[in-house]
Amino acid sequence: MNARLIGVGVGPGDPELVTLRALRALRDADVVAHFAKAGNMSHARAIAAGHLKPGVTELPLMYPVTTEIPKDAPAYCDRIAAFYDGCANSVAAHLDQHRSVAVICEGDPLFYGSYMHLHARLAARYPTEVIAGVSGMSGCWSAIGTPMAQGDDVFTVLPGTLPETELARRLGDADAAVVMKIGRNLPKVRRALVRAGRLGRAMYVERGTMADAVVMRLADKPDDAAPYFAIVLVPGWEGRP
Amino acid sequence: MNARLIGVGVGPGDPELVTLRALRALRDADVVAHFAKAGNMSHARAIAAGHLKPGVTELPLMYPVTTEIPKDAPAYCDRIAAFYDGCANSVAAHLDQHRSVAVICEGDPLFYGSYMHLHARLAARYPTEVIAGVSGMSGCWSAIGTPMAQGDDVFTVLPGTLPETELARRLGDADAAVVMKIGRNLPKVRRALVRAGRLGRAMYVERGTMADAVVMRLADKPDDAAPYFAIVLVPGWEGRP
Repeated sequence: MNARLIGVGVGPGDPELVTLRALRALRDADVVAHFAKAGNMSHARAIAAGHLKPGVTELPLMYPVTTEIPKDAPAYCDRIAAFYDGCANSVAAHLDQHRSVAVICEGDPLFYGSYMHLHARLAARYPTEVIAGVSGMSGCWSAIGTPMAQGDDVFTVLPGTLPETELARRLGDADAAVVMKIGRNLPKVRRALVRAGRLGRAMYVERGTMADAVVMRLADKPDDAAPYFAIVLVPGWEGRP
Repeated sequence: MNARLIGVGVGPGDPELVTLRALRALRDADVVAHFAKAGNMSHARAIAAGHLKPGVTELPLMYPVTTEIPKDAPAYCDRIAAFYDGCANSVAAHLDQHRSVAVICEGDPLFYGSYMHLHARLAARYPTEVIAGVSGMSGCWSAIGTPMAQGDDVFTVLPGTLPETELARRLGDADAAVVMKIGRNLPKVRRALVRAGRLGRAMYVERGTMADAVVMRLADKPDDAAPYFAIVLVPGWEGRP
């Protein structure tokens, strides 16, 4: 056995959108680690479930409950940093026993993924490999068959947490955009799209690659209820030949 | 047999970064179509080569030679539009014979891919499916183990063809950026990164997921020679906890 840290992208949700290289990593790894919220099943674990070796050692990494601390407070950052330090130590304990550890990640490991916190702490100390995955946003625009960006389009990804004025400015400044972290930011995102003159092109997507996906033109959505992981797509390629 | 148009993402280059769903599509399709430049092998065809059914019908779609026409001339747009119209007709001829046609695409089909031109012309007329793929840029940042974007980072994709002042403004306005279409735009991209104060973080990548990849800090690259498909990565996540 050989110590090896492997960040494994398992794609956006459909277990068939896992790559051959991810499958091989799952077959070869001594330990499979995954992040999850306390009380919830890991999304990555659910996607990979059918691909895991029976009886493989699993290392669940459970986020601490932090709802009592404001997200911009130093105490929140300290708590989260301590959590990732602890996770890195748990993974390192296996690596020090010459085991390979596959950290499975929804989407792509180095694109808005929790795996990055382990990578930043461990990649300099152990042999490390990252297996790219299909991103959540690719899964969404493919599921609904919406061409996103072409030619010289400028494409941008924006968190719905940005202030309304900045969202509007950036939505007007890009040809194609994805807005993430929708949840209770939806009314603000909608107003920003109106100010940027782009509400008419915006698509609202919940659980894009799952059987229970919800997809509609945002202009047609009658309410402002949205889960945190919903996204809004604003396709580019307006001058298509 | 059933008429069906399928845009199949085959990922960034490593044949193991093909998804199970793409494999199944290649196994089931009656016809496999791929774009290529005259005199060149299709990149997508090279990636998928080991996954094609022996003797499957292939439909190569060869770009016209347009080097004699400036890219912003109406004649160029007409020529390219006529080419895609012809490609759509060739694909439709198979669909009209109740054959399924898998159009294989490097990276992700609806993200800067030529497949989009067929999709725009045919998706309303035939049953259509798009299989998301690992994007070329995900392949690059994973191959070099560079965390790209995290948390509330704004991420943007810029074509190297933009004017220097606009490149500099946009590079200064995003937390993480990818610059595509490098080629002879490299000196301009370098100057724009200096103006944005971001040259120090920029990575230069050629053929990122291939055995002969070239990777270095852009600040260390001693010359301005670069192929068109080289990319520059400017990672975000500067305030990592």
